[in-house]
Amino acid sequence: MPSCRFDVLGIGNAIVDVISRTGDDFLAAQGLRKGAMTLIDEARAEALYKAMGTATFVSGGSAANTIIGAASLGCRAAFIGKLKNDETGAAFAHDIRAAKVDFSTALAKDGPASGRCLVLVTPDGQRTMNTFLGAAQSLSEADVEEHLVTQSAIVYLEGYLWDPPAAKAAFVKAANIARGAARRVALTLSDSFCVDRYREEFLALIRSGSVQIVFANESELHSLYQTGDFDTAATQLRTENILAVVTRSERGSLVVTRDEVLAVPAFPVGLVVDTTGAGDLFAAGFLAGLSKNKDLETCARLGALAAAEIIQHIGARPLTDLGQLAAQNGIAI
Amino acid sequence: MPSCRFDVLGIGNAIVDVISRTGDDFLAAQGLRKGAMTLIDEARAEALYKAMGTATFVSGGSAANTIIGAASLGCRAAFIGKLKNDETGAAFAHDIRAAKVDFSTALAKDGPASGRCLVLVTPDGQRTMNTFLGAAQSLSEADVEEHLVTQSAIVYLEGYLWDPPAAKAAFVKAANIARGAARRVALTLSDSFCVDRYREEFLALIRSGSVQIVFANESELHSLYQTGDFDTAATQLRTENILAVVTRSERGSLVVTRDEVLAVPAFPVGLVVDTTGAGDLFAAGFLAGLSKNKDLETCARLGALAAAEIIQHIGARPLTDLGQLAAQNGIAI
Repeated sequence: MPSCRFDVLGIGNAIVDVISRTGDDFLAAQGLRKGAMTLIDEARAEALYKAMGTATFVSGGSAANTIIGAASLGCRAAFIGKLKNDETGAAFAHDIRAAKVDFSTALAKDGPASGRCLVLVTPDGQRTMNTFLGAAQSLSEADVEEHLVTQSAIVYLEGYLWDPPAAKAAFVKAANIARGAARRVALTLSDSFCVDRYREEFLALIRSGSVQIVFANESELHSLYQTGDFDTAATQLRTENILAVVTRSERGSLVVTRDEVLAVPAFPVGLVVDTTGAGDLFAAGFLAGLSKNKDLETCARLGALAAAEIIQHIGARPLTDLGQLAAQNGIAI
Repeated sequence: MPSCRFDVLGIGNAIVDVISRTGDDFLAAQGLRKGAMTLIDEARAEALYKAMGTATFVSGGSAANTIIGAASLGCRAAFIGKLKNDETGAAFAHDIRAAKVDFSTALAKDGPASGRCLVLVTPDGQRTMNTFLGAAQSLSEADVEEHLVTQSAIVYLEGYLWDPPAAKAAFVKAANIARGAARRVALTLSDSFCVDRYREEFLALIRSGSVQIVFANESELHSLYQTGDFDTAATQLRTENILAVVTRSERGSLVVTRDEVLAVPAFPVGLVVDTTGAGDLFAAGFLAGLSKNKDLETCARLGALAAAEIIQHIGARPLTDLGQLAAQNGIAI
């Protein structure tokens, strides 16, 4: 059998980030939950945008960021996500194609505008996200083309997809096709509040074997197992019989399998400017390593490298060729 | 008589910058003139955008950048510029108002899309600009409200306005109203190729007394006097009987009046990331000082400070409160 057409296929909410620097006082005045991703409707998005300062528009979306990072590390990559045929949608489509990612999901001709995430970055580099899903809500089973899934070695799905009901159906369809074609399915838990909303369903995906690889940060893991203790959560994770990767910011990451627990340090960084996309890019590096059959430690080092690049500038899309960056840091890929 | 409502009013082409990092090879392959601003039509803009990499959208426009910088330094500021009622136009309007600048020019309901400048930033930090003026071309005399001009202590006009014929008429109207109200008029020469196009007209504006303050960089000054020798050009400038400021990148600036020539050093900067807006922000600092009746050296130091901030990040709008930055650097404003 010839090899897969794609190393990794991502499916996620297609979103453009609208990024503004702000102080903690603004978050307080607007009643925003610092560090979290909150879903907002169009009216709230307009009001919040009006109150925000000068903003930079950069394509984003969790799974899309990951896929672009993987492409920058030399993966053959594809993405499925829904936008409207408007200026924001055109910018997203341009950027993902400019990154050499296969993107062919039809743009919606009517309905809500392309999705936007209002990202507020505080002086500590933390990001607080407010997402108006817009057209992303209409991602549906019809957008999941079977041949894309069967021709991808790894299918990467974001937990955020469980928010819009039609997108959840698309997620389930993709996972089922992948399973039927013996492809690996990876899931990112996305956000601790997202895990709160869909805890039982995410656990069922993991325990039913629909998902073989899971990415989580500490607070998502705590939320998944409803514990405030990291070691308790990590011990539970080991019993799931999957490949799990837990990111721990400056404390690095933990790779958890049934047989081993591997701690890999973070990459040293200078000034942390904007943490938007840190988890997405960690997943990008890890998946790129995995798709090229690297050992798990190398996969995690690639993740750390990609995350380090992304937090040193505004926006969640790499500004550097990550493949070259890896080579400069002595990681062959 | 009560004091003016505004310290400074800017009139210019309202543009959103679409910024992408690229190599010199891309400029060569696309036949682009490095460091210059080239006007392009919509078809060319689409083709060039398609060929560009991932892009960041940030509001720009030369005079608009200057006005926002002046506002950041505590000036009461206003702006006149034309956009369409589209997503790009809405973003521009949001950003300029978020910077506390009075902006009330009506958005065009039809006609070409809001203007965009495709900015290609090479690894040396140099920017090469390709402008599709779009709706900015339809700025006209009707958009210049007399009361805005008469209530502004300084009216700042960009040379780029001479490209669209209707905007040129708006420029002339504003200059005439300002003269009638004994307001000072400042002109930036914008770009050496722009000076090539309108040399005689710019000289006539200066020599007729329509313009009392001129901003230029070295290549614009060389173009104005058609000489390759800086000292020759500077000597000619002295005979014009105006206040002129020549920016010289890392060599600082030269303030030229009939009575004196003052050299002011540049502010030391770390890494130059993107020089887009360096001249615009120099003018911002200088005008802010002037509007607060600072001595010319302090004006030039404020210009150098604002320019230093802008070249250390992507985009031509300040990411820092320039008033605070000035205070931290011991410049009272």
